[in-house]
Amino acid sequence: MKVLVCYDVARDDNGARRLRKVARICEDYGIRVQYSVFECLVDPAQLLMLKRSLEQAINMKVDSLRYYHLGKNWKNKVEHVGAKVAIDMENDLLLF
Amino acid sequence: MKVLVCYDVARDDNGARRLRKVARICEDYGIRVQYSVFECLVDPAQLLMLKRSLEQAINMKVDSLRYYHLGKNWKNKVEHVGAKVAIDMENDLLLF
Repeated sequence: MKVLVCYDVARDDNGARRLRKVARICEDYGIRVQYSVFECLVDPAQLLMLKRSLEQAINMKVDSLRYYHLGKNWKNKVEHVGAKVAIDMENDLLLF
Repeated sequence: MKVLVCYDVARDDNGARRLRKVARICEDYGIRVQYSVFECLVDPAQLLMLKRSLEQAINMKVDSLRYYHLGKNWKNKVEHVGAKVAIDMENDLLLF
């Protein structure tokens, strides 16, 4: 099943480190489609592991995660307009 | 129907202005759930207007929009973990 993971990580002292960690975890399970949005193709067991890793990586008081279950036939539920953002995986920078 | 709008706006010269405009447009149709993620409850006609406004507001070469059609019973498709981000609507800042 396809699960969309959206995250906001606060820009406090450790924010950059948590942001990189969250992105790294998501990369193991899916594809980055926007700066803080990943599309992950996971089975229920993988989803549990993904969630556990992410929820350990964030600061629950100031960061947030949203999971959207897009189900099986998710392809016709998604539309993209504009630039395909190329992400520099090493430095988490947006390349234009 | 519920449509999730996710956007990435490049941080170039006019990026901040486009970012505010995109957020303002989304605010007319829905609720901000993360810094660049809105949940919009729209009918087909409203969705068309929302898209037209957003696609006029962005720079197609460097910004991106993703629409996710969550359908009718979207409530059990969404999970939130962590902070409920309070957004300062005036300055588009995240308040923690």
